Amino acid sequence: MIMSQQLVVGIDIGGTNTKFGIVDRRGNIIGDGRMLTNQHEEVNGFLDELHGHLTELIEKAGGIENIKGIGVGAPNGNYYTGNIEYAPNLRWKGVIPLASLLEQKFGLPTVLTNDANAAALGELIYGAARGMKDFIVITLGTGVGSGIVANGQLIYGHDGFAGELGHCIVIPGGRHHAGTGAHGSLEAYASATGVTNTALEFLAERPDTPSIMREHSKEEINSKLIYEAAMKGDPLAMEVYEFTGKILGEALANFVMFSSPEAIVLFGGLTKAGDLIMKPVREHMEQNLLPIFQNKVKLLFSELKESDAAILGASALAWEMKD
Amino acid sequence: MIMSQQLVVGIDIGGTNTKFGIVDRRGNIIGDGRMLTNQHEEVNGFLDELHGHLTELIEKAGGIENIKGIGVGAPNGNYYTGNIEYAPNLRWKGVIPLASLLEQKFGLPTVLTNDANAAALGELIYGAARGMKDFIVITLGTGVGSGIVANGQLIYGHDGFAGELGHCIVIPGGRHHAGTGAHGSLEAYASATGVTNTALEFLAERPDTPSIMREHSKEEINSKLIYEAAMKGDPLAMEVYEFTGKILGEALANFVMFSSPEAIVLFGGLTKAGDLIMKPVREHMEQNLLPIFQNKVKLLFSELKESDAAILGASALAWEMKD
Repeated sequence: MIMSQQLVVGIDIGGTNTKFGIVDRRGNIIGDGRMLTNQHEEVNGFLDELHGHLTELIEKAGGIENIKGIGVGAPNGNYYTGNIEYAPNLRWKGVIPLASLLEQKFGLPTVLTNDANAAALGELIYGAARGMKDFIVITLGTGVGSGIVANGQLIYGHDGFAGELGHCIVIPGGRHHAGTGAHGSLEAYASATGVTNTALEFLAERPDTPSIMREHSKEEINSKLIYEAAMKGDPLAMEVYEFTGKILGEALANFVMFSSPEAIVLFGGLTKAGDLIMKPVREHMEQNLLPIFQNKVKLLFSELKESDAAILGASALAWEMKD
Repeated sequence: MIMSQQLVVGIDIGGTNTKFGIVDRRGNIIGDGRMLTNQHEEVNGFLDELHGHLTELIEKAGGIENIKGIGVGAPNGNYYTGNIEYAPNLRWKGVIPLASLLEQKFGLPTVLTNDANAAALGELIYGAARGMKDFIVITLGTGVGSGIVANGQLIYGHDGFAGELGHCIVIPGGRHHAGTGAHGSLEAYASATGVTNTALEFLAERPDTPSIMREHSKEEINSKLIYEAAMKGDPLAMEVYEFTGKILGEALANFVMFSSPEAIVLFGGLTKAGDLIMKPVREHMEQNLLPIFQNKVKLLFSELKESDAAILGASALAWEMKD
């Protein structure tokens, strides 16, 4: 008898939290939970706790025979090997064969990739990119991540690490990135930290320009505060978005010249600013495109609820898995 | 009876010449020829002449029943539609349905793409990228073109125009590109024209630095003369390659962050300079890569003879054609 398995497990491993859930084909989360990632010094302790939580959820969802497989989004996750490789923000160092450890633990086929690739599959299966064969997802959060789909397939590259667009150099010799040491990478500008650094630069460079951000100490200024100031019409805060949007738009133009996507889907904190960021993004993207690409590429916001997106993205991997 | 067709036709349409040939599965050119592209005001006149030449070659190769199909490399060639769309350097304006015109003429299935995509397929089927699933070909000639293979497939994008890496902006606000109006695109630096402009800038900016290039008038300075000066050890000419290699290397690093290719295959005039250009390219590419990508990507020269490459690339399209 051939079983039609109608559910998958999605696990998103972040530096702080690990989120997990059971998901159906339409993207409904049947059950979910979360745990702290770095409470366990050894990955085996982490797996034991995760196994306990998930077993409970799986039982409630009708048992393991209803589950097709497990998809995992993890920092530095390698699709080909199923390993987490040298993730800087996890306690488990070196190469962790997470997919095979999970397969042993649950007896279910398990696929793993990084969180931005998982986000792209989430948009493909459940979200804004349903039915598209060529699109790029850019995640704009603490960092800048990306997942690229071309010819209907996620691009993993020869080694499983393709799609690190946040680390493309967009301003040669530009702003220093503390994490990578690079100068002028997209992430140095278009991440939450980047936006904060831009605001701090503007405030320091223009002491005579009034701004409600000046009511706060340097240490208090963060992307949330800048957003709120911009929403109140603070010109300097609005200019931070203008500047960030220009750099992001120029970067997106280069990405379009690479894979000519039907759409670019933006996800994450920065998109909350809406038109404040999207207007300059679109303007500078179009300005930098060859005429054959102009006015063709859709700029979309993710259609996945931010609180669900990580689990959905990871779960999408399991649907994409070859039987 | 199922015929095993052992030959294909490759046609490369350039601004000046159109080259055509009959090619076997191993990349041997059984017969070939060339004609002027822009002698015919109407595309029909062009097709009549081409039909005459090719019919002769096909007869010599044993007749049309030995031919699997026709592959065409053409400026602004669109793989999905088979059209040449608004090619700036051809006399036939607007949209030319070249693939379907050739199908009618020869009764053979015909596939068309741009010349750089054809070059990438040429390397995949007969050249330096045989057996690779992920690589990028960069053509460094009058312009800078590219063809990108990921997951074993050429990336065409949603509209057939993917892979215009020569038009990526590498120096925001940089050198003006006369053809596109863009500022700071890779093609403005790493093409034959770009190299010439760099030499002219260096000569003007540093009037006191001696150089054998100063024996020539501005108008005489071109990429060939710069190459010869560099080969004689002229420091200024060598610096032109150093500068060009730096910019190209930085651009390649960004491309690697996109698709994480196993190799980048360089093709065309600039590669003749050998280590003079490759040393700075490699150095600056590695410097700008995230550690996970460093010392992994092969930088290769094309293995196709330059005189054969255009026909071979176009012919490769016909082998890749779905039956």
